[in-house]
Amino acid sequence: MDETPLGLNLDRNRERRTGRAEAVYAEGKSPEQVAVATASLAAAASGAVFATRATREQFEAVVRVVPDATFDEASGLIVAKRAAPTEVAGTVAVVCAGTSDLAVAEEAALTAEALGLRVDRIVDVGVAGVHRVLEHRDRLESAGVVVVVAGMEGALPSVIAGLTSRPIVAVPTSVGYGASFQGLAALLTMLSSCAPGITVVNIDNGFGAAIAAHRILKVAAPARER
Amino acid sequence: MDETPLGLNLDRNRERRTGRAEAVYAEGKSPEQVAVATASLAAAASGAVFATRATREQFEAVVRVVPDATFDEASGLIVAKRAAPTEVAGTVAVVCAGTSDLAVAEEAALTAEALGLRVDRIVDVGVAGVHRVLEHRDRLESAGVVVVVAGMEGALPSVIAGLTSRPIVAVPTSVGYGASFQGLAALLTMLSSCAPGITVVNIDNGFGAAIAAHRILKVAAPARER
Amino acid sequence: MDETPLGLNLDRNRERRTGRAEAVYAEGKSPEQVAVATASLAAAASGAVFATRATREQFEAVVRVVPDATFDEASGLIVAKRAAPTEVAGTVAVVCAGTSDLAVAEEAALTAEALGLRVDRIVDVGVAGVHRVLEHRDRLESAGVVVVVAGMEGALPSVIAGLTSRPIVAVPTSVGYGASFQGLAALLTMLSSCAPGITVVNIDNGFGAAIAAHRILKVAAPARER
Amino acid sequence: MDETPLGLNLDRNRERRTGRAEAVYAEGKSPEQVAVATASLAAAASGAVFATRATREQFEAVVRVVPDATFDEASGLIVAKRAAPTEVAGTVAVVCAGTSDLAVAEEAALTAEALGLRVDRIVDVGVAGVHRVLEHRDRLESAGVVVVVAGMEGALPSVIAGLTSRPIVAVPTSVGYGASFQGLAALLTMLSSCAPGITVVNIDNGFGAAIAAHRILKVAAPARER
Amino acid sequence: MDETPLGLNLDRNRERRTGRAEAVYAEGKSPEQVAVATASLAAAASGAVFATRATREQFEAVVRVVPDATFDEASGLIVAKRAAPTEVAGTVAVVCAGTSDLAVAEEAALTAEALGLRVDRIVDVGVAGVHRVLEHRDRLESAGVVVVVAGMEGALPSVIAGLTSRPIVAVPTSVGYGASFQGLAALLTMLSSCAPGITVVNIDNGFGAAIAAHRILKVAAPARER
Amino acid sequence: MDETPLGLNLDRNRERRTGRAEAVYAEGKSPEQVAVATASLAAAASGAVFATRATREQFEAVVRVVPDATFDEASGLIVAKRAAPTEVAGTVAVVCAGTSDLAVAEEAALTAEALGLRVDRIVDVGVAGVHRVLEHRDRLESAGVVVVVAGMEGALPSVIAGLTSRPIVAVPTSVGYGASFQGLAALLTMLSSCAPGITVVNIDNGFGAAIAAHRILKVAAPARER
Amino acid sequence: MDETPLGLNLDRNRERRTGRAEAVYAEGKSPEQVAVATASLAAAASGAVFATRATREQFEAVVRVVPDATFDEASGLIVAKRAAPTEVAGTVAVVCAGTSDLAVAEEAALTAEALGLRVDRIVDVGVAGVHRVLEHRDRLESAGVVVVVAGMEGALPSVIAGLTSRPIVAVPTSVGYGASFQGLAALLTMLSSCAPGITVVNIDNGFGAAIAAHRILKVAAPARER
Amino acid sequence: MDETPLGLNLDRNRERRTGRAEAVYAEGKSPEQVAVATASLAAAASGAVFATRATREQFEAVVRVVPDATFDEASGLIVAKRAAPTEVAGTVAVVCAGTSDLAVAEEAALTAEALGLRVDRIVDVGVAGVHRVLEHRDRLESAGVVVVVAGMEGALPSVIAGLTSRPIVAVPTSVGYGASFQGLAALLTMLSSCAPGITVVNIDNGFGAAIAAHRILKVAAPARER
Repeated sequence: MDETPLGLNLDRNRERRTGRAEAVYAEGKSPEQVAVATASLAAAASGAVFATRATREQFEAVVRVVPDATFDEASGLIVAKRAAPTEVAGTVAVVCAGTSDLAVAEEAALTAEALGLRVDRIVDVGVAGVHRVLEHRDRLESAGVVVVVAGMEGALPSVIAGLTSRPIVAVPTSVGYGASFQGLAALLTMLSSCAPGITVVNIDNGFGAAIAAHRILKVAAPARER
Repeated sequence: MDETPLGLNLDRNRERRTGRAEAVYAEGKSPEQVAVATASLAAAASGAVFATRATREQFEAVVRVVPDATFDEASGLIVAKRAAPTEVAGTVAVVCAGTSDLAVAEEAALTAEALGLRVDRIVDVGVAGVHRVLEHRDRLESAGVVVVVAGMEGALPSVIAGLTSRPIVAVPTSVGYGASFQGLAALLTMLSSCAPGITVVNIDNGFGAAIAAHRILKVAAPARER
Repeated sequence: MDETPLGLNLDRNRERRTGRAEAVYAEGKSPEQVAVATASLAAAASGAVFATRATREQFEAVVRVVPDATFDEASGLIVAKRAAPTEVAGTVAVVCAGTSDLAVAEEAALTAEALGLRVDRIVDVGVAGVHRVLEHRDRLESAGVVVVVAGMEGALPSVIAGLTSRPIVAVPTSVGYGASFQGLAALLTMLSSCAPGITVVNIDNGFGAAIAAHRILKVAAPARER
Repeated sequence: MDETPLGLNLDRNRERRTGRAEAVYAEGKSPEQVAVATASLAAAASGAVFATRATREQFEAVVRVVPDATFDEASGLIVAKRAAPTEVAGTVAVVCAGTSDLAVAEEAALTAEALGLRVDRIVDVGVAGVHRVLEHRDRLESAGVVVVVAGMEGALPSVIAGLTSRPIVAVPTSVGYGASFQGLAALLTMLSSCAPGITVVNIDNGFGAAIAAHRILKVAAPARER
Repeated sequence: MDETPLGLNLDRNRERRTGRAEAVYAEGKSPEQVAVATASLAAAASGAVFATRATREQFEAVVRVVPDATFDEASGLIVAKRAAPTEVAGTVAVVCAGTSDLAVAEEAALTAEALGLRVDRIVDVGVAGVHRVLEHRDRLESAGVVVVVAGMEGALPSVIAGLTSRPIVAVPTSVGYGASFQGLAALLTMLSSCAPGITVVNIDNGFGAAIAAHRILKVAAPARER
Repeated sequence: MDETPLGLNLDRNRERRTGRAEAVYAEGKSPEQVAVATASLAAAASGAVFATRATREQFEAVVRVVPDATFDEASGLIVAKRAAPTEVAGTVAVVCAGTSDLAVAEEAALTAEALGLRVDRIVDVGVAGVHRVLEHRDRLESAGVVVVVAGMEGALPSVIAGLTSRPIVAVPTSVGYGASFQGLAALLTMLSSCAPGITVVNIDNGFGAAIAAHRILKVAAPARER
Repeated sequence: MDETPLGLNLDRNRERRTGRAEAVYAEGKSPEQVAVATASLAAAASGAVFATRATREQFEAVVRVVPDATFDEASGLIVAKRAAPTEVAGTVAVVCAGTSDLAVAEEAALTAEALGLRVDRIVDVGVAGVHRVLEHRDRLESAGVVVVVAGMEGALPSVIAGLTSRPIVAVPTSVGYGASFQGLAALLTMLSSCAPGITVVNIDNGFGAAIAAHRILKVAAPARER
Repeated sequence: MDETPLGLNLDRNRERRTGRAEAVYAEGKSPEQVAVATASLAAAASGAVFATRATREQFEAVVRVVPDATFDEASGLIVAKRAAPTEVAGTVAVVCAGTSDLAVAEEAALTAEALGLRVDRIVDVGVAGVHRVLEHRDRLESAGVVVVVAGMEGALPSVIAGLTSRPIVAVPTSVGYGASFQGLAALLTMLSSCAPGITVVNIDNGFGAAIAAHRILKVAAPARER
């Protein structure tokens, strides 16, 4: 176990154990803390390194020490290092109920791509126009995992789970107002779904959904990739 | 204003004001209280009279004083008097996501029929097999009002609202467990729907949905019926 | 299905299916996204087109591409196109418990007017001075639908439902503090009402109430829309 | 401070400090514990003594040691001793929204009577037939305090507070289902009321409302009564 | 019933019915709306007139039309007119658990004074130094009503109710963090108190507590004052 | 689409679309309804058929029409038909924090086995004795999916996600009391985990976790098995 | 690590690490499971062994294999083995707000005694008669730890924390109704206390409070006892 | 009892009773109020004096009257006076799950140091890399008390409680998003822990945890503080 100059105690072996390096949760950290932690992980990791929920100010501190880091402002995702492009052969479909959910969907898609997954983006297919999702049934079935991002009532995963045999990772978003209670309505909907086999991550957690997809597709990948 | 022998203070003119007599909410009342209140309303009302959430013991007290009263044990609905059969010309579609929701759907259907509405029952069309509801699009559009009954994630009204121009009265049910929180998940889903124009009644309130449908169809009915 | 230049996937046939075009939920979208989506819907729709919960900045982007769009700053409603004036002949009474609820009531009224409905505004008739609403009983009964907007304890729909035979669409507002919990108290009140037949929409959802009223009045309209 | 044979540590001087003896909360106590505590308080108190939320079995233990104790089974109230009849000259109006709320209203009325208050019972005046409460305006104003008992949406106190200048003690009840959440909806309604000056006690707490009324009327009573 | 130039529909007779004029709830209203409503009520009322939860900007609009209006910035209370000084002879003790609760306590005290009540302020007597409140027992008993203002755990009313025979109006405040949930902890505490006869108003509602005190003390006041 | 004698409207093609037949949710259905639905699905399906949350009485009705159905009384799982044993080659580790969670873990394990998965049961490895789970790191990594079942604080998935690269499906259980709120604490814990990539199903939903595992392992299985 | 005949995986070394053996949480376990686990722990442990939340039926299974086990029916506590009497020299004061809280207080007291602590029971000292607790200040200060058990509003720990310098372990109980929400009110009260240094355990968790007291007093005990 | 110039009513004897002076809760107080209260306590106290949740502006007012006061901006802690360095000889381990929890951990550590305790800081040992905490077992056991600070799922105290015999004071933090609900998830986790003997303080309440640790270590300290 190493301790960084700032007294951080990073879990540098997590990549060996879990297939992915530790990520830096930027909220509540100083820009310097984020930069030191991210740089330290990037130096040690062979694959992708991330910081989540970062501000532009935190990113600017990171990019000074990890020059090729990239930043998605809408979701606050910093990608400090990318996996080698051929690591995992699978595809993840990232399906998004409405345009307001795009920031969360992009967090999932960018994370997945940085981990070496192919991403198929399917946007704006809310259940109030259910034919829109029906038209994409083949694209869903072609993917190895389907990440479904939806706010408001969060009903899209139930419909999709009835259309495809693929693993479903549902991401409730905080899009909505009033009785959506910052994503609670969508979260409870997804957990209570009548369509069995849907799994759920935290509200607005596109990053976690991509990690879950990566865990799933690594199981499916040939032995040499593990 | 009359007071009954038991000291009840019934609102006997409500029928004139609102088009429907007061209903007796049976929960927490003694069988005798339910019987006296129901009989008193039935004597005064020209149209249908109901007691809701009744037990068999309460019904048996009612039927002694209102001999042609009927009872639906699953929902606890007592119909003490029915409207004249031709009062309202409209049709209400009662759509039910799953068989477990049938008791609530039947409360809605029986209430609507007792109020003189035609009922078109469409059952077991949950969103996990969304083609089932798509097949019924014409029946939905033929109705004057669509009552949609769903528990668990309660997503069915969102799908239906995108398929039809008709008024939607959504009824969340307490079917489900865990994160469905006795119908809370379905309730929040229906209130947060991305499909505008859905209106919602209380959890398990099939009776209220039918009254709402009756209010709507009376607007549409010719003047002589009012 | 069309895809717009920005990758939006609009449901342009919704108007044919449901009688109303899709609306743009502006929250969490960029001004450009709102403008492109609104313009695209306005080009395709024969009737009214709306964007809800918009900021002034989003409106300014819209008005550049849809020059006659109008904006209600208090509610954030953009009306990008209005229905032909004679489409639906019915009247919706929009009843408002207090002046603080006016923004939500206006969202309902402006939406209804844009959809071709006549609106009768009845304001400031809270239940603490219950004679104020009793005086308006005839105006309530003359309308085809009554939209009731109330915050704090949200008791007004219960009183009104006992006074009129008309369909009631109740809108809880987030007006209040402490135990009103941003509209939750009013929402629960309206759902738990002892007056049967009240239907409820989401907190602050004046737009949805107007859509529900439009659905109802279309049922009532004869071939030439009365 | 005395300790009873059972190890109870009763607050026998509370009557001197607060004008009323301690009450025995029977829930979760053994019949013997309730009997010993009640008898001990009855022996020491000059005025009324109560046990609340008692079962018949607990009452039977009490009545063996306090032979003239009485029991109201619906509310579980044991009155072990009554105040001298002339103690307080005031009147409390106990107003009840529906028949299902009667048990709680009776707990309030019986407690008030045992404390020497006159009680004016006004029942079944729910807000869905608001004329029923308007007719009683004079009876409300004649009372010194108005206790208002209501379940479901709990809107009655708001209406009454706008009709009378008297102190209002509102009691939410657990009558209702679904979104009434065992009295939570009525509780929030009463706390959020737009009519200022309403005070609220716990759900189903008719006993506490009567104690509050007694506190109020003792302020108004002539000096010798204090 | 009058309608003001701005379309406000004020309840100008409320003073005759309830002993106090309607108050203006300023939150969510424009400065002009607050000014017109307040001026209109002040012109019609014989006694005190208030606007609550006002901003300085709203007050400045009021004072232009009601020149002797006063403003308490901490609580947002505008007093637009005061009762004649001798109207009610009683005293209200306003007891405050901590200095952070002072804004709410002052709202209660200033309202009570404007209504013609004498106020005895007892501050900073939290239960963690319980001797501080014990020392004030005589001042509590000398008052006609005790308003108890407390945030965090809100335990002070329970202690006070055991010390005095007076009516208790408890005001939970939003002071606290974490598990106090913006006043919810204090609210539940006060409602669940083991000391019977405590009545409770909304979180931070010092205004309502004073109105309740006024209702109570008017009962106690000699006949000529009613 | 077929309709059964009882009017049930089963989704008989779901197996073709999703790889698994519809399951019968037994709660709230009559024994006859459960039996007819289960038999109908068993006749049509080529693979496993389930009814969940069944009572013994419902099972007895099922076994009369599907003689080789089996029943796990603790979880209420009926297996009416099993997949051909070689369908899917993968292994699911079912890890259980405490013995009280065994019923939910067994529902997962039995469902997975009926779907043709191998199951490795690892029991009683709660985090208060964290060495117990560390000892099983190899067994976790050997599985294709890890289902983690935990009640009370539900911390086990966080620990396991840091130990293995495998997909994690976390199942909160309702084991616990007080602040565990029937599984809510465990549910929130699992959703809020600092270990990314954990996915979560509903409280006590062992069945859903097994379906999710099956979806995942089918992705990994060779082409002929799909 | 041992596995028992029933497949239980007990943490038999926990005593060495934490000073106390693992306890058996009986809820949701079969009588046989409880008996085997308890006997197995009792055989291995040098000190006290417990099973909590047990039924009489579970106890009867335990006593067949651990003949000198004892059972407290009110709390469901089984003591299967007691610590050697002189292990810890300290005293824990167990203070109880009301008689209804006695079952939880006894669970704490019996656990503490079985662990070798002296217990000083102080009962029925609710805050509505606050002098009762003031009289015991010396007994509180003489103890090494004060466990305070209170339901309803749960205010007692705040008062006690202001009276003594000792560590306070507060136990909210589920005693109460309505707004006490099964102990939630007391729990939030204790967490939000204005008196710093109060620590809190789960609702009704007298067992956990005693373990916490034991942890504290072991710190204070002389070295040979560790 | 003294009253300060500003009308504050400080509990200046609390130090004698409880071993620590009253603390000033700065939130909602004016800078002048905080300064006067802090200076007044510092003048009277022999040991440490604190103000919590202060802003820089409040600190600047304090430092003008208490020149050697110090301020920790991240947590808002003002230390106005420190205990004599030899008062208590014990050590408190402050363990922190993640860097984002550092502000709360520092509030605990700085408070403990000001009270004369030694502090051993152990940072960044979240359960997703559980080996990190295992490595510190000896440091935990060497401390007299372990304060564990964790946000998100808050699982760290459960793991630590299984590793050490020391008293555990768990501090949930508001670090996290979505289903962590501002610290509620961590709070419920810690209260529901399967590891007995964990005690919990309010969300983000590092100050309270240090006070609890001080209470505990004072019990353990011999006459000359061990």
